[in-house]
Amino acid sequence: MKGYSITELSVGQNASFAKTVSESDIYLYAGVTGDLNPLHINEEYAKNTAFKSRIAHGMLTAGFVSAVLGYHLPGPGSLYESQSVKFLAPVRIGDTITTTAEVTSIDMEKGRVLLRTTCTNQEGVMVLDGEASIRLRKPK
Amino acid sequence: MKGYSITELSVGQNASFAKTVSESDIYLYAGVTGDLNPLHINEEYAKNTAFKSRIAHGMLTAGFVSAVLGYHLPGPGSLYESQSVKFLAPVRIGDTITTTAEVTSIDMEKGRVLLRTTCTNQEGVMVLDGEASIRLRKPK
Amino acid sequence: MKGYSITELSVGQNASFAKTVSESDIYLYAGVTGDLNPLHINEEYAKNTAFKSRIAHGMLTAGFVSAVLGYHLPGPGSLYESQSVKFLAPVRIGDTITTTAEVTSIDMEKGRVLLRTTCTNQEGVMVLDGEASIRLRKPK
Amino acid sequence: MKGYSITELSVGQNASFAKTVSESDIYLYAGVTGDLNPLHINEEYAKNTAFKSRIAHGMLTAGFVSAVLGYHLPGPGSLYESQSVKFLAPVRIGDTITTTAEVTSIDMEKGRVLLRTTCTNQEGVMVLDGEASIRLRKPK
Repeated sequence: MKGYSITELSVGQNASFAKTVSESDIYLYAGVTGDLNPLHINEEYAKNTAFKSRIAHGMLTAGFVSAVLGYHLPGPGSLYESQSVKFLAPVRIGDTITTTAEVTSIDMEKGRVLLRTTCTNQEGVMVLDGEASIRLRKPK
Repeated sequence: MKGYSITELSVGQNASFAKTVSESDIYLYAGVTGDLNPLHINEEYAKNTAFKSRIAHGMLTAGFVSAVLGYHLPGPGSLYESQSVKFLAPVRIGDTITTTAEVTSIDMEKGRVLLRTTCTNQEGVMVLDGEASIRLRKPK
Repeated sequence: MKGYSITELSVGQNASFAKTVSESDIYLYAGVTGDLNPLHINEEYAKNTAFKSRIAHGMLTAGFVSAVLGYHLPGPGSLYESQSVKFLAPVRIGDTITTTAEVTSIDMEKGRVLLRTTCTNQEGVMVLDGEASIRLRKPK
Repeated sequence: MKGYSITELSVGQNASFAKTVSESDIYLYAGVTGDLNPLHINEEYAKNTAFKSRIAHGMLTAGFVSAVLGYHLPGPGSLYESQSVKFLAPVRIGDTITTTAEVTSIDMEKGRVLLRTTCTNQEGVMVLDGEASIRLRKPK
């Protein structure tokens, strides 16, 4: 239950988490957030769009970024300052998404770490690309 | 099930969605995303942090932005290109979060709309500030 | 896993199921059905209504009727034809609702059974009153 | 967050909500309501019935009626008085149900509005037919 301190991190360090996205993930996410856009919960609607089937909410996939940062790298004790994400490709029911965060910059003075955050599907297609800014406690 | 087309939007147009964040929201979100950071699901851990109690995942709050954009403004038919968010203050169990999206820029040529996206708690404290970029179908 | 056949039922026969309604019940119900009415999921909104706090969806309570009929009396094997419900009083988070179904009429010819279905809270206030019509297999 | 007042409604006015029913919807509904009838949660049992597979609870489908009334027409601020439903055909996992409420009668004096409420699957088969009675605030 203890994450990395800033002096334990180095540029290039990375961690990943992978999950197969289920229909129930999408449905629970719709219920928790209130995003009932039919593209996510209405197959008849979705099959008449360019996507051809229901897709996961982009921000659900972005939640996997939160999982890597909050649970793995840097993990507990870090303060999530900001996140930017680009949604590059759809995530479908049954897709397995590998989410990776990699340290790109460390500002020891300000206690701030930047990480590139990417999500890739089982075919190697990048579905999300972004950057996170994290504040970390300084070493005592 | 049909959202706004780009010609139906104007700068300053806005929409909101409000929800009281429940313990079950945080737990379901933790389960769906895999973000098991103890700050969200371990009260004993959380009460020994600066936050003093479990707080919602910042990216859960960001999901309410997805709800406003995907279900209300511009709603179904829009394509979520990118989102940036700053996490400004904690969201606690029982907080009621009002999420607002407001159109700040419309590029008719490229079919792109920018919106400022903010989340505010019941005391008027802004907990999240961000910007969304949405692609919309051009008028026929 | 086998319910009553029509010859095993008699007028006045009854069964009950009781449950304390949790916040998570209401939130999951909102997500499954899509009923995001703020009276159910927004405490700030609800406290400014005549109800003074969030309440359960009336149709969630009606779901307890389905539980008694489908799981207890007459139970598995019956065919749920129709239901009428009147919503008489609000159900709040933490209320314990006892739902009772009582056989009021048996039409052996048509294989149809009518039941009065009521839901009462921990203070004895009836919150729902209704009637169910069930079809049952005839004895061989 | 503000629904229609009674003077803003007219006979024939209608609204719809559509959702593909997932296995997780049925399971969560079973858990929330306690309706563990094997027809809904036991595939081995269900395949030996006339239905040939698990089906959704009729009252789950009725919950979509609550969603249309409570979130769309008349929406927030209305008081749900009563509902009658007839279950006409089974709803299976993967079916997309379109639920429509249409104003059939307005009693301005009593502040009461009646709506016909129907649910139809992706093949146009009506699976539920019913009537709702709603009380609405009178104009000031």
